[in-house]
Amino acid sequence: MNVDKELFAAFAFHAGLMVVKTLGMSFLTARQRFAKNNFISREDGKTRPAAKIGTGVDEDVERVRRAHQNDIENIFPFLTLGFLYLFTNPALSTATTVFRLFSGARILHSVVYLWEIPQPSRALAFFAGMGANLYMGYKILSTFMSAM
Amino acid sequence: MNVDKELFAAFAFHAGLMVVKTLGMSFLTARQRFAKNNFISREDGKTRPAAKIGTGVDEDVERVRRAHQNDIENIFPFLTLGFLYLFTNPALSTATTVFRLFSGARILHSVVYLWEIPQPSRALAFFAGMGANLYMGYKILSTFMSAM
Amino acid sequence: MNVDKELFAAFAFHAGLMVVKTLGMSFLTARQRFAKNNFISREDGKTRPAAKIGTGVDEDVERVRRAHQNDIENIFPFLTLGFLYLFTNPALSTATTVFRLFSGARILHSVVYLWEIPQPSRALAFFAGMGANLYMGYKILSTFMSAM
Repeated sequence: MNVDKELFAAFAFHAGLMVVKTLGMSFLTARQRFAKNNFISREDGKTRPAAKIGTGVDEDVERVRRAHQNDIENIFPFLTLGFLYLFTNPALSTATTVFRLFSGARILHSVVYLWEIPQPSRALAFFAGMGANLYMGYKILSTFMSAM
Repeated sequence: MNVDKELFAAFAFHAGLMVVKTLGMSFLTARQRFAKNNFISREDGKTRPAAKIGTGVDEDVERVRRAHQNDIENIFPFLTLGFLYLFTNPALSTATTVFRLFSGARILHSVVYLWEIPQPSRALAFFAGMGANLYMGYKILSTFMSAM
Repeated sequence: MNVDKELFAAFAFHAGLMVVKTLGMSFLTARQRFAKNNFISREDGKTRPAAKIGTGVDEDVERVRRAHQNDIENIFPFLTLGFLYLFTNPALSTATTVFRLFSGARILHSVVYLWEIPQPSRALAFFAGMGANLYMGYKILSTFMSAM
């Protein structure tokens, strides 16, 4: 199994970027937890008598958690789809475009979600990323169909 | 590191299928959200005065979300385990059987969950997928134990 | 794209270990569900008239689920970061140290979370794992930056 060096590099960059972006959501959640004094487990509030403990308590905290979960549901699939897509013999320019579209759409999705920009902004960013994922999924399934 | 072409193709097909299947859960959730008028963020309900906003509100919506989360907990591990398993020198027929078993079990798991087919159906589908994952995990750990 | 055999083996072992560890959280959740008679879907309680159904009901069940979710948020990123990191030409000894640090930190994170060991234990275990992930992310992005 061999993959073109430039093709692999394009995937490695965008996959790395998307993982680091997803990890960043933990820090944004933590920032809201301290700002709103809402922590997730009772031991976190031991030295903070006024802290609210639990999930579903503070909308600003929950909003970041929902954006994080949406990354899990869309970016983690991309990490596998993007890698397998490399083996479907795509043109470098096509692959780079798909990866850039996905990265751009997912960064936009978080910006729109966290700044509460009115719909259909979030839906559009979601579907741009989903479209890139489904396109790669289609290429993978049609390429490897005979190995079912 | 080299992997047999047919072995890789079998993994690529089943991994692609499982990722696309997981992505599909988003559409099933959206379908229930519109059917039950229950959306996740307040900006989604701006033009729908009767919409219920939030999680944990509608059982039919939550059921799809639980099935989706169960895919995340089991299919995402498969994507890595299946790939590393390729490097443990399995017979093609064994690997194909394990991948097919996993794919079948996880599709069944969603059908059983969403149609609310009585237990122990869901438990059995869950354990079939989990068994395939743990089998591959065991092969990987025993093959690469010396690199601990 | 070629990777040193020993480097790959080190990744394969630790990635396999971390996935199996994450899968194990399902069994720990199930154990608490039976111990506290709290199940997730109504069909699970058909033959248990006293069962409590739903999420957010029992703190001991929810604690395992939060630890599981934290694994999803940190270990799944590691699976991709660790793999791409292999292509950044790291020294075997450095890579092994990073993988061991990550594995150790994440096992510790679960122990600390489930046994409710006082903070900042959980925060420290979290940041050790996050640090390993971000280090690999930095190496990947700087190596493949030109393929943006």
